Amino acid sequence: MKINKVLKSKLHTIDVNNVSFGSTFTDHMLICRYKNGKWEEPEIMPFGTDIGLSPATMAVNYGQACFEGMKAFKNENDEVFLFRPDKNFERINISAKRLAMPEIPKDVFMDGLQTFVDLEREWIPSELGKSLYLRPVLFASEEMLLARISEEYIFAILATVANNYYSNPLKVKIADHYTRAANGGVGYTKAAGNYAASFYPTSLARDQGYDQIIWTDSITHTYFEESGTMNVMVRINDTLITPPVSDTILNGVTRNSIIELARKNGIEVKEEKINKNDVYKAHKDGSLKEMFGVGTAVIVNRFSEVGYENESLQLPAIDEKDSFAAKLKQELLLIQSGRSEDPFGWRVKVEEKNTVLN
Amino acid sequence: MKINKVLKSKLHTIDVNNVSFGSTFTDHMLICRYKNGKWEEPEIMPFGTDIGLSPATMAVNYGQACFEGMKAFKNENDEVFLFRPDKNFERINISAKRLAMPEIPKDVFMDGLQTFVDLEREWIPSELGKSLYLRPVLFASEEMLLARISEEYIFAILATVANNYYSNPLKVKIADHYTRAANGGVGYTKAAGNYAASFYPTSLARDQGYDQIIWTDSITHTYFEESGTMNVMVRINDTLITPPVSDTILNGVTRNSIIELARKNGIEVKEEKINKNDVYKAHKDGSLKEMFGVGTAVIVNRFSEVGYENESLQLPAIDEKDSFAAKLKQELLLIQSGRSEDPFGWRVKVEEKNTVLN
Repeated sequence: MKINKVLKSKLHTIDVNNVSFGSTFTDHMLICRYKNGKWEEPEIMPFGTDIGLSPATMAVNYGQACFEGMKAFKNENDEVFLFRPDKNFERINISAKRLAMPEIPKDVFMDGLQTFVDLEREWIPSELGKSLYLRPVLFASEEMLLARISEEYIFAILATVANNYYSNPLKVKIADHYTRAANGGVGYTKAAGNYAASFYPTSLARDQGYDQIIWTDSITHTYFEESGTMNVMVRINDTLITPPVSDTILNGVTRNSIIELARKNGIEVKEEKINKNDVYKAHKDGSLKEMFGVGTAVIVNRFSEVGYENESLQLPAIDEKDSFAAKLKQELLLIQSGRSEDPFGWRVKVEEKNTVLN
Repeated sequence: MKINKVLKSKLHTIDVNNVSFGSTFTDHMLICRYKNGKWEEPEIMPFGTDIGLSPATMAVNYGQACFEGMKAFKNENDEVFLFRPDKNFERINISAKRLAMPEIPKDVFMDGLQTFVDLEREWIPSELGKSLYLRPVLFASEEMLLARISEEYIFAILATVANNYYSNPLKVKIADHYTRAANGGVGYTKAAGNYAASFYPTSLARDQGYDQIIWTDSITHTYFEESGTMNVMVRINDTLITPPVSDTILNGVTRNSIIELARKNGIEVKEEKINKNDVYKAHKDGSLKEMFGVGTAVIVNRFSEVGYENESLQLPAIDEKDSFAAKLKQELLLIQSGRSEDPFGWRVKVEEKNTVLN
């Protein structure tokens, strides 16, 4: 791997506790190009180096682009960890295949993450709940206006200073017109286009006082799919229910981890379709205890209010200590950040390599 | 409008009759930026000028990007014409709205096209059937990894040497699993992501010997939607049928123009749903005369074979002079290229302005 380091890190010029998420990038980025039918040697270079993108770049015109969201955590001993990167690796290649893009070799993805995160380790906060957000992204880079599969790609890894994991409860509205994904479509991938398609319906929901949409099936608008960009979970009495993954529902790493953690805690988890009318009835009879979204960004985000048709359902103000959401979030965070045992073997330590030190 | 011309055109270095479509760009591009809630002054600059795109650009990550396809034609008198640019203007803003992007002001779009095409007029071939392909494209340009509506955009106009309009008849397969668009989704827009989602299913159809897919509704896979990236038309006896536009079907400029031209020719046109089983029956009873796709690139492209479930239907080898497809294509081309009367007022002449001449 070629490494072209910045002469001087900009880290000391940035108040990492006082930046908004997503627009403050670390010193470097990893770039790996696919050309002439094969992947070239990855290269780490200063973030923002001109890599020759133009308005004719195919990703911009035809949307061949997908990404992953990951985090790097640091514990009190300055050990750095990734969380289940094998899952992100598998999924980015599932997205790649559906979008007719070449699969990323495992060593490019895994060694790339290790070397890149090691190089940026000073950027990773060690405070509990904080992390460095990592963005592997794969996109068509050929300059071409013919609507066909691109012949050139770039796989990049970027990093940005992350939010801490605290989050306010959300007001969510059950979708009754717009849809996120069709059967036979790309909803199960992290295709760039899935996100753009969700912004306008979400802005309409915001105008009505909601934060997010619970997406429903495109045929009947009856069954829950996802919430915003998270998987959705419903607690009825002491059972946790989440829709099974499908070709319209993302196979979330946090979803999968929360399910495993819940089961380890003795909580019954069902992966089955959730009918919005059943949720409504459960709210009326008092058996609906909690609803929440799960995803990389905030791990778990509780819902306080659910827009069902023309009604707004207030969810119970369940105590933190009795909340599945709160308990599972805290446990997962402690595992991710290297502060508790790792019974599932989910953590991957980022080794310090002398090769990348000055 | 700021104009920064190239010192020397590369036109003389290019054999325009011998380049493949889509990757040979003209000398310039138009760039107009949206920042701080407003559109800035458009600027024409050398194609390929670095405009600061990176792997963190929001269009690449979250897919806020849409485009139009247009052509500039030249007749024997070296007059240059655009075809119904008002339709493309309307549609790019329909796409923009659904993808939560700011609408492009009419003067930016229209004056931009006029000035840009005028500047590139030497690139436009005057031979019948040839043209310069124009690509207006609007995309999110903010460097941001938070999944929210971008606050910065670029509207660009690019041009590339076009194919001539001749095309071989296509073998098309009726989709029975994959889908292009969901009700409540973005299928009626020219969102970048729509194209990426179609590539993999199309490649599977290619493996079976087909050129393109006739997309069907996502619920029953029974009703025709589009064919490849074209609108689809079916001729039963002497009636032309095409599906009505909807939230899953693009409101094609060529579709609309062919319908108007057909009616002017006394052909009955019905805009109604097309059930694949009815098409199958019509093939069996001999009333299915023609099927074709219509779109900017080739105007009209006839189908020779249709994959219906496990059968392959050979379409009749109808004579050119009896073909609606051939007749309408030729008539539309003559109007577009300034070689016949323009009874509908569809052509817009590109004026020669001294301001952009050296």
